[in-house]
Amino acid sequence: MANAGSRRTKFVLDEDRIPRAWYNIAADLRTAPPPPLHPGTHQPIGPADLAPLFPMALILQEVSTDREIEIPDPVREAYALYRPSPLYRAHRLEAALDTPAHIYYKYEGVSPAGSHKPNTALSQAFFNKQEGVKRIATETGAGQWGSAMSFAGAVFGLEVKVYMVRASYDQKPYRRILMETYGAEVVASPSLTTNYGRAVLAQTPDSPGSLGMAISEAVEDAATRDDTKYALGSVLNHVLLHQTVIGLEAQEQMAMAGEQPDVIIGCAGGGSNFAGLTFPFIGQMLRGEASYRIIAAEPEAAPSLTRGVYAYDFGDTGHMAPIVKMHTLGSDFIPEPIHAGGLRYHGMSPLVSLLKEDGLIEATSVHQRACFDAGVTFARAEGILPAPEPTHAIKVAIDQALEAREAGEERVILFNLCGHGHFDLAAYERHLAGTLEDYEYPAEKVTEALAALPRV
Amino acid sequence: MANAGSRRTKFVLDEDRIPRAWYNIAADLRTAPPPPLHPGTHQPIGPADLAPLFPMALILQEVSTDREIEIPDPVREAYALYRPSPLYRAHRLEAALDTPAHIYYKYEGVSPAGSHKPNTALSQAFFNKQEGVKRIATETGAGQWGSAMSFAGAVFGLEVKVYMVRASYDQKPYRRILMETYGAEVVASPSLTTNYGRAVLAQTPDSPGSLGMAISEAVEDAATRDDTKYALGSVLNHVLLHQTVIGLEAQEQMAMAGEQPDVIIGCAGGGSNFAGLTFPFIGQMLRGEASYRIIAAEPEAAPSLTRGVYAYDFGDTGHMAPIVKMHTLGSDFIPEPIHAGGLRYHGMSPLVSLLKEDGLIEATSVHQRACFDAGVTFARAEGILPAPEPTHAIKVAIDQALEAREAGEERVILFNLCGHGHFDLAAYERHLAGTLEDYEYPAEKVTEALAALPRV
Repeated sequence: MANAGSRRTKFVLDEDRIPRAWYNIAADLRTAPPPPLHPGTHQPIGPADLAPLFPMALILQEVSTDREIEIPDPVREAYALYRPSPLYRAHRLEAALDTPAHIYYKYEGVSPAGSHKPNTALSQAFFNKQEGVKRIATETGAGQWGSAMSFAGAVFGLEVKVYMVRASYDQKPYRRILMETYGAEVVASPSLTTNYGRAVLAQTPDSPGSLGMAISEAVEDAATRDDTKYALGSVLNHVLLHQTVIGLEAQEQMAMAGEQPDVIIGCAGGGSNFAGLTFPFIGQMLRGEASYRIIAAEPEAAPSLTRGVYAYDFGDTGHMAPIVKMHTLGSDFIPEPIHAGGLRYHGMSPLVSLLKEDGLIEATSVHQRACFDAGVTFARAEGILPAPEPTHAIKVAIDQALEAREAGEERVILFNLCGHGHFDLAAYERHLAGTLEDYEYPAEKVTEALAALPRV
Repeated sequence: MANAGSRRTKFVLDEDRIPRAWYNIAADLRTAPPPPLHPGTHQPIGPADLAPLFPMALILQEVSTDREIEIPDPVREAYALYRPSPLYRAHRLEAALDTPAHIYYKYEGVSPAGSHKPNTALSQAFFNKQEGVKRIATETGAGQWGSAMSFAGAVFGLEVKVYMVRASYDQKPYRRILMETYGAEVVASPSLTTNYGRAVLAQTPDSPGSLGMAISEAVEDAATRDDTKYALGSVLNHVLLHQTVIGLEAQEQMAMAGEQPDVIIGCAGGGSNFAGLTFPFIGQMLRGEASYRIIAAEPEAAPSLTRGVYAYDFGDTGHMAPIVKMHTLGSDFIPEPIHAGGLRYHGMSPLVSLLKEDGLIEATSVHQRACFDAGVTFARAEGILPAPEPTHAIKVAIDQALEAREAGEERVILFNLCGHGHFDLAAYERHLAGTLEDYEYPAEKVTEALAALPRV
């Protein structure tokens, strides 16, 4: 649905156009989401089960079926530090590809932490603060989420403790220093500060850690301290909810551009940036108001939506988190060390999984070298250096644009550029030097891991 | 001149408000700028002397006295990748300082290269391309300018060769990789690719290099190849001219805010970001239309405006560049290794120097630890992590805000946040660990260096 229009590069909105409410897709779903189960009893869990970990406002958002959930003024004021984020028309990328397609991207790298993660970190920090919480415990792998939560803690006056996977802690000091500059306390996980961490270290003193271990440490920290709650950066309903500001703004900006997208693309690990852009558009589809092609771009090394099963599974390796129905490769499955650390997750958010099951979205998986090629092409055309995660979306967007060239059609493509790659240049160096590896889909490992699904 | 107004955080402009012309302060100067002299003959140089290094369009801009110089459409289109840049009201910093002052900052870190440098890099790339130049040779110290020129080369289809000071090349690989991702060729200087580099290496095989040496290599490269010109990132009149988009936009944005600044602050090394913000305001002063207090913030380790002499001196260590009249600490003076690499320069742009001499601007010098303290305060309040260079402007802005608190006055403060610090986190780590050093003003070294001023 292309429109001639003038050559405009960016569509910017004043801060009074920051959305006043998040969009809750639960209100429009065709199928009710299967309930999360208690990891011990396998019975549906209620708000009380989650109270040690989350403030009540977030627990209620997790289960709400209201279509709109108001964004409190202090959160909108904090959003104004970087929102509304710009929507770009990628004129130079289109020219480089010699395509009649119109390519648009929403750019979330303008946030101080450099990705979409602050959209929920600020919201979570606010609701915790409002309920008297003094301190947040959380985990981080490569550091995107930890940076966002540290920034949000500085904004709302909360102490933040980040359990950072030991391997990243040692190899990626810049992200750690950024968190510390925001005032957070960062410790390598496994650490000596939790029972779980001590137990791991007693057995494996040189453990490189894993996201699963770090989650366990942060959960233990929060569950054992009255002043502390836990925060998670993806997967959960309320996290995806907070990210819908991305899509709500994009709808207004596409209207400014006088076009509607034919295809909407986001990379998907836990699902939060994908959901943030697409849910408001999918809502229109669910309400019969519009029709779009929606594509989740996954890494070939962790293709939960494209190759996993839709089943009840644990969200964490330690089997302490609720059991949820989702697309999964098995909670014991550990993806190969691709540089898109944010996409190295065995499962997928239950809401995104349900939409895939209901046929509202498609998924495709891509290899990391092709993604970095797409990232370099993008950087040379548009200037912005993308993080490894959104290069997956860029790769699929470029494929769409080339397909449109073959078909000779003015396809309108919209994707989410969820963060910049300023802390990922070591990966670009490896790519430019030709030493980056592709990892084939590990069918056997997945088969093994899926054999251990919980019987519910 | 404060105004109550509503609580707005950002003032954004649509891309059709990108200025259509640069502001040339030469049109309004009270004193004519002393002519640059040939380094060999000590005679005034003309356009022909510069032709081997620069395209004629830039040489004409260098000597123009037209008040407005039109920005070509392709440059405005490239600017649209990140301009107009936002103007922020620092509500959270004001609250943290408990000051009645209103603090505004113009944020240039939104450019793909992360600083104000692309404002001139894109312009220089365009004018070179227009005159058939195929290749640009340039130097870079810490890498801000090299990144900007590499980005600009990618945008306008020019090959870029960057001579990067060896010490930075080894210690700051991320900036190098960013340049390479944009497609530039980066070589450690001194290199084996120039006569000058080979001569240095023959004498000192393990030379860590210096900005002076790297300039000499880039100049030799450009002067000895027909397809190549040279590009410089600060100091020269045409470079400062291109940066005036910053101040022109800021004037429009301050009008949106309904306020006029009382004090305007920029950090100053070669002078380009300082000039970019302040020249359009100083132009109003020169024309008798307004009155502002204008402050250049210098590092105590290289305080050319505050402690140097106003005299004819060489711009480079190798004494190959024109001799210009400026505030200088002597071309043999090598500043201590402060982290604000962009401020480690012995001289100051001739135009900024002249304005200081004519009493239109003030200058003050600050120590780096106090600047990093200011940077951390700023990051925790406003989210954005500043580069070490603009922490000098932040420090002076905070001092102004605290002074306003003492005086109980609603002083309106505007400063230039010329870049982010995503590639400078090692310096923040040292600061947070308390191992950063302050360097006293090196009076003796300066006295020695000034004894070697050219006799003209």
